[in-house]
Amino acid sequence: MQKSKIINDPVYGFIQIPEGILLDLINHPYFQRLSRIKQVSLAHYVYPGAHHTRFHHALGALHLMQEALSILTSKGVEISPHEQTSACIAILLHDIGHGPFSHTLENTLIKVSHEKLSIAFMEALNITFEGKLTEAISIFRRTHPKYFLSQLVSGQFDVDRLDYLSRDSFFTGVTEGVVGYSRIIKMLSVSDGALVVEEKGIYSVEKFLIARRLMYWQVYLHKTVLAAENMLIKIIERARILHKRNQLQYIPSSLKYFMDNDITEDHLSENALFLLDKFAALDDFDIFSAIKEWQNEEDRLLAFICKALLNRELFKLKFSDVPISSEKLLVEESNIKSWWKGDDEEISFLLFSGKESNRAYSYAQEEIKILTKEGIVKPMSDCVDYPLPPGGIEKYYLCYASNLKEKTLS
Amino acid sequence: MQKSKIINDPVYGFIQIPEGILLDLINHPYFQRLSRIKQVSLAHYVYPGAHHTRFHHALGALHLMQEALSILTSKGVEISPHEQTSACIAILLHDIGHGPFSHTLENTLIKVSHEKLSIAFMEALNITFEGKLTEAISIFRRTHPKYFLSQLVSGQFDVDRLDYLSRDSFFTGVTEGVVGYSRIIKMLSVSDGALVVEEKGIYSVEKFLIARRLMYWQVYLHKTVLAAENMLIKIIERARILHKRNQLQYIPSSLKYFMDNDITEDHLSENALFLLDKFAALDDFDIFSAIKEWQNEEDRLLAFICKALLNRELFKLKFSDVPISSEKLLVEESNIKSWWKGDDEEISFLLFSGKESNRAYSYAQEEIKILTKEGIVKPMSDCVDYPLPPGGIEKYYLCYASNLKEKTLS
Amino acid sequence: MQKSKIINDPVYGFIQIPEGILLDLINHPYFQRLSRIKQVSLAHYVYPGAHHTRFHHALGALHLMQEALSILTSKGVEISPHEQTSACIAILLHDIGHGPFSHTLENTLIKVSHEKLSIAFMEALNITFEGKLTEAISIFRRTHPKYFLSQLVSGQFDVDRLDYLSRDSFFTGVTEGVVGYSRIIKMLSVSDGALVVEEKGIYSVEKFLIARRLMYWQVYLHKTVLAAENMLIKIIERARILHKRNQLQYIPSSLKYFMDNDITEDHLSENALFLLDKFAALDDFDIFSAIKEWQNEEDRLLAFICKALLNRELFKLKFSDVPISSEKLLVEESNIKSWWKGDDEEISFLLFSGKESNRAYSYAQEEIKILTKEGIVKPMSDCVDYPLPPGGIEKYYLCYASNLKEKTLS
Amino acid sequence: MQKSKIINDPVYGFIQIPEGILLDLINHPYFQRLSRIKQVSLAHYVYPGAHHTRFHHALGALHLMQEALSILTSKGVEISPHEQTSACIAILLHDIGHGPFSHTLENTLIKVSHEKLSIAFMEALNITFEGKLTEAISIFRRTHPKYFLSQLVSGQFDVDRLDYLSRDSFFTGVTEGVVGYSRIIKMLSVSDGALVVEEKGIYSVEKFLIARRLMYWQVYLHKTVLAAENMLIKIIERARILHKRNQLQYIPSSLKYFMDNDITEDHLSENALFLLDKFAALDDFDIFSAIKEWQNEEDRLLAFICKALLNRELFKLKFSDVPISSEKLLVEESNIKSWWKGDDEEISFLLFSGKESNRAYSYAQEEIKILTKEGIVKPMSDCVDYPLPPGGIEKYYLCYASNLKEKTLS
Repeated sequence: MQKSKIINDPVYGFIQIPEGILLDLINHPYFQRLSRIKQVSLAHYVYPGAHHTRFHHALGALHLMQEALSILTSKGVEISPHEQTSACIAILLHDIGHGPFSHTLENTLIKVSHEKLSIAFMEALNITFEGKLTEAISIFRRTHPKYFLSQLVSGQFDVDRLDYLSRDSFFTGVTEGVVGYSRIIKMLSVSDGALVVEEKGIYSVEKFLIARRLMYWQVYLHKTVLAAENMLIKIIERARILHKRNQLQYIPSSLKYFMDNDITEDHLSENALFLLDKFAALDDFDIFSAIKEWQNEEDRLLAFICKALLNRELFKLKFSDVPISSEKLLVEESNIKSWWKGDDEEISFLLFSGKESNRAYSYAQEEIKILTKEGIVKPMSDCVDYPLPPGGIEKYYLCYASNLKEKTLS
Repeated sequence: MQKSKIINDPVYGFIQIPEGILLDLINHPYFQRLSRIKQVSLAHYVYPGAHHTRFHHALGALHLMQEALSILTSKGVEISPHEQTSACIAILLHDIGHGPFSHTLENTLIKVSHEKLSIAFMEALNITFEGKLTEAISIFRRTHPKYFLSQLVSGQFDVDRLDYLSRDSFFTGVTEGVVGYSRIIKMLSVSDGALVVEEKGIYSVEKFLIARRLMYWQVYLHKTVLAAENMLIKIIERARILHKRNQLQYIPSSLKYFMDNDITEDHLSENALFLLDKFAALDDFDIFSAIKEWQNEEDRLLAFICKALLNRELFKLKFSDVPISSEKLLVEESNIKSWWKGDDEEISFLLFSGKESNRAYSYAQEEIKILTKEGIVKPMSDCVDYPLPPGGIEKYYLCYASNLKEKTLS
Repeated sequence: MQKSKIINDPVYGFIQIPEGILLDLINHPYFQRLSRIKQVSLAHYVYPGAHHTRFHHALGALHLMQEALSILTSKGVEISPHEQTSACIAILLHDIGHGPFSHTLENTLIKVSHEKLSIAFMEALNITFEGKLTEAISIFRRTHPKYFLSQLVSGQFDVDRLDYLSRDSFFTGVTEGVVGYSRIIKMLSVSDGALVVEEKGIYSVEKFLIARRLMYWQVYLHKTVLAAENMLIKIIERARILHKRNQLQYIPSSLKYFMDNDITEDHLSENALFLLDKFAALDDFDIFSAIKEWQNEEDRLLAFICKALLNRELFKLKFSDVPISSEKLLVEESNIKSWWKGDDEEISFLLFSGKESNRAYSYAQEEIKILTKEGIVKPMSDCVDYPLPPGGIEKYYLCYASNLKEKTLS
Repeated sequence: MQKSKIINDPVYGFIQIPEGILLDLINHPYFQRLSRIKQVSLAHYVYPGAHHTRFHHALGALHLMQEALSILTSKGVEISPHEQTSACIAILLHDIGHGPFSHTLENTLIKVSHEKLSIAFMEALNITFEGKLTEAISIFRRTHPKYFLSQLVSGQFDVDRLDYLSRDSFFTGVTEGVVGYSRIIKMLSVSDGALVVEEKGIYSVEKFLIARRLMYWQVYLHKTVLAAENMLIKIIERARILHKRNQLQYIPSSLKYFMDNDITEDHLSENALFLLDKFAALDDFDIFSAIKEWQNEEDRLLAFICKALLNRELFKLKFSDVPISSEKLLVEESNIKSWWKGDDEEISFLLFSGKESNRAYSYAQEEIKILTKEGIVKPMSDCVDYPLPPGGIEKYYLCYASNLKEKTLS
């Protein structure tokens, strides 16, 4: 009999965590920090309920992993207790490399992807926990012989996605993202060492792909959310420039290291533990309290954007199916220059274009596999009477400050 | 035809806000700031979904007010459009006087109740909005001739409570707090200028009272939540002492004024606008980012509690039906002194007792009134075959750090 | 690896039924028949969603039993696989003795309680299934040495009640009946062979008791539901009288045996299999299609009540805290006699009094036991700061047809 | 002030029905009868919660119509109170022409479509209610000048579909069918007299189309549901043949007229009131209680299918993308002939092929129109970056009894 801790979760009811390595990892400061990092960055600027955290998502994904492992073993798939725990560790820590505001600042604070950082954190924790994470790391790195375990952690159809769609949909109230996670998990199976979905679950998979697609356009890439997140990026970029010019008056101690240095993967290989401790000291609070201080910076550009973001006076963002033409940029530039007296460097913070793509179903990646009643494994796209939602649809956007001039300059 | 803005809300589906004064108030920085103040303080230490904000609660209460006004007018109660808007303003701003971590720090940062501050904010906004809030203020102050409007804002059975029970229950996942808000609102009526509930809604009222009672014990006064919140109070108290002794190295600029001065209602009457701007500059981010800096303060007591709170190594809290005896205190004191070498002042931060009470149904306040099918108005307690849940049940507690010694001192 | 069948359930998501005896029992005609018997009789006359069946409730209770057994074994309680299956069988079949419209006609069609009939059905099935139900029967009969298994099937706090409250609440939309079944089950434990609830679940238990109480008054004993159900009883009673007088023109073949004979427990012991087959041939369809035919009977009293019930022109029902006085009866009798020209026998079908009681928490039965953190077992009533909702509150009622006179006689 | 009746609905919370013509229509026996007709025929053979009725669906669609009218008027669309009531009547009665088991027996009992019967019922009620339904009938017939009202009742995007998807999804527990009805309704508008959807609602529309598609395959055309429904059709067909040969022993009085005559639209135009009264006397209870009697018919074929359906021993049904080949039919025929000794007529009841199609999005019908932010109206298919789910996908099936031979013949 194993003792466990039960946590209330409004999405699944309860999450049960066995005492031992999983609970110990959750109690580690590296993990606790995730409770200060929002899951969907600034989406709460549009969806006021969306303040849920990476901490919560990691627990939720762990819960679904437990369910999936239990279903698979009940279907006769052999997974040893140690492998089960390792798969749970891998999913629990899959996002531990995320920094403040997750994807938004992913390339702005540090030039290392969050996946690379997750591995680095796992390896650091593996030292602390005396090798107990070795198998989990191999699952995360996709080198484990039971490949389906890696697919459960990260694949076309992993418990990560099942949790974040369910969770983000729950907290935003966007019902278009609701996913039948319970049914989908019950339909999982393993064939030739790889994850497959039983044929009778095919409509649930279709619904899952559509839900993912809709969540991209309605939440993750919502134009107002994107505008706010771009403002956040511009703030950090501006602060960094000012800091390098010795013109930034305030800098929180936790952020200083990342303003002083352009961190790349090289730093990670040189002195991982030092860097990880620095990085683990950062969370959403450092960024937003800095922004609050920076409202009063001498640099009027930084102050302007900070104040606007705090008071929710957001830049305008317009999508386009084609790249933004230079004519359009010029028109807006002259508009902005009519009220913002500044040089081109400054204007580049108030007017810029960009590109986003949904990633609903990437054929480049391995395809979802369906197990027919006759026991044959086929790619999903062969089993539907209807084209799957395309991934990689790209949209271009123009983002600019002009609608703010009257309000905020006063 | 009035334009309006629609906001997704996972609790009610959608909240509709008409353009005009209500939307303008929401866009005001005083109100936007509420999106950086958590509704249930540190309850997310136990319920990881509970990061929802005062901003969201205010919108939700506004929604229920709109529903209630629409039901009452459909029943023939006369409420003019201006009165309707004023009742909506009153509920929208009812909590605008809350500071960081709401009730937890209510007497620690500033010696003015949040209701007094709410009125002060409303009066300041009334100047900005050229008198448009005058009637709303009279509703909030309970001086409006249509008394039932004041009761809808604040009473035994107001839309404030209906929203926070529904919302806190939703985000914590504590189903015991679910309230049939929709049914209750449909049962509201007015008799002799006062709010009444139609008799057929009596079981919904009973359920509401029970739900409120259960939410107190399971969420608001959960022992682990209370322990974390007490640690937060102790941190601010310690920092203030150190600051007065010039021993605090770091202080965020927004917090400085409140550390320098012991603000009371006198300050509010002297220079309200100045004080309100200072207060409005504060939110949860200032406090938690300060705590992050204070982990590294020279004062090892402050550093110790800050680090413990951030890493979720919480004090122990034990409830008792009777006041904590001095014997018990002495026993724990000697335990703590065995590992914490410090003077009595320091010990008082690591060991203390307190008292809390649920406020489920206070008979002292006006009773809920029931309107029978025969048109008679009776107090609720005369209509039930079963005693109502008692309010004012008091519990004493002892809170202390001893379980932390091994973990955090290292 | 055991194969299983998965059934969609809107209440719990999915119900999983292992192949073998449980699935075989579900496929048996005795059990399939439950899909033609409504769970809450005529409650859909008030709550139009409440058409769910005994079949569905039995599957739901089975699901909760599986959850409970899994929790208990995870806490170290020893329950053998055969005992687990037997507990599942016992709960699956616990209501198999219900006839058409469940409780409503329980004493009208046959003078044997549904529990007695359930046992008789189980024993008949035990022959068919060659003794595989023997242990299940001992659990149902409360003679099994592991008493807690019997308590899970039927006790103050059994999975039967947890399911029907959840399910009836779901299908009626009466949110007051929502129960935290998942939390409660997670709090179950066993001490000295008896079922206990861990102390931290005490508020969930309190909520469960309140929910049960509220469901009685809002659904099961709703005055309009009770009026409709009383009409149904009167119809059967009248038809039986007419049949005995050879004045009933139509009788469905399945009902004939029960109209010819007054079945008591004696018949059950004499010739159980014959009687059970007769009884199993009956369901809601026989009764309601008979009522449709009886609209056209020569007996104008029977025709009148049948037509009224089908067209939802219901008798009036008034509750009273005290027994209905003979004065009140006389007043209504003279009212009815003013438009219904008939003898006293006929009047007794159009005007009658009755008594109902909720059964929220019966102290007469064994009390719910709480297991404190210190490992002590106490009765629930010693652990609360608040009186438990009383069971056995009795209400008297007067039910009469007078409001129908104009509508239906024409 | 208008009085109204409030009905609990688990899907929307509450449905409010104003006193007057709407409530009077609901109380009419023609409408009450819908409470004895299941919404999704025999879908409860697979989804045990799906016993909801046409009565409940009609109330739900009425509720959504009220919401839609309120949204449209708030956007400045002119709809007079009488038009509003008429649109409500039209939707309330849109399915009143359905008979027992809705679509399943639509062409078997009577050769008149349910839409034609709905109009006939409305015209009959219009006499009873002295012309108050005249405008409602013109809305239902699509001859009303405000065409968008007809589209709300029946179109690509009507409140009928919004309600049945939400409701069927709720009662089956098939989450793939969940539809954001609330958001969609809020996005409705009118342009040039026709219904349009505002551009920001486009993803909700996409989700709606997908949900409809998935509900077809997972519920309405689920192979087991379809098998059961085909058995029901075969039972009626066989009974009719036997009745015409004077070989049917039992026939319920309500069904006799439809067994004696092949009713076509001609009968409807000749003597509508007589026919409607006969038809209104029929509901699910007549059919299923007849099936119960027919278990004991002398015709062993009828008895066999009836018994099988009651005991849920269902025919096998296999889908195919191409028409069933005669080879395949011959193979199964010889299988069946090996155990069922009967002539070809009999075999045609035990083995037959058919065709079904989903009707998710029919381009033949008018397209959904989108209103862009610039005020331009475009067809939906021009606004998406992704092909809409195709309507009219046809699937062929083979349905046969062979899997029953062992079980049921004994």
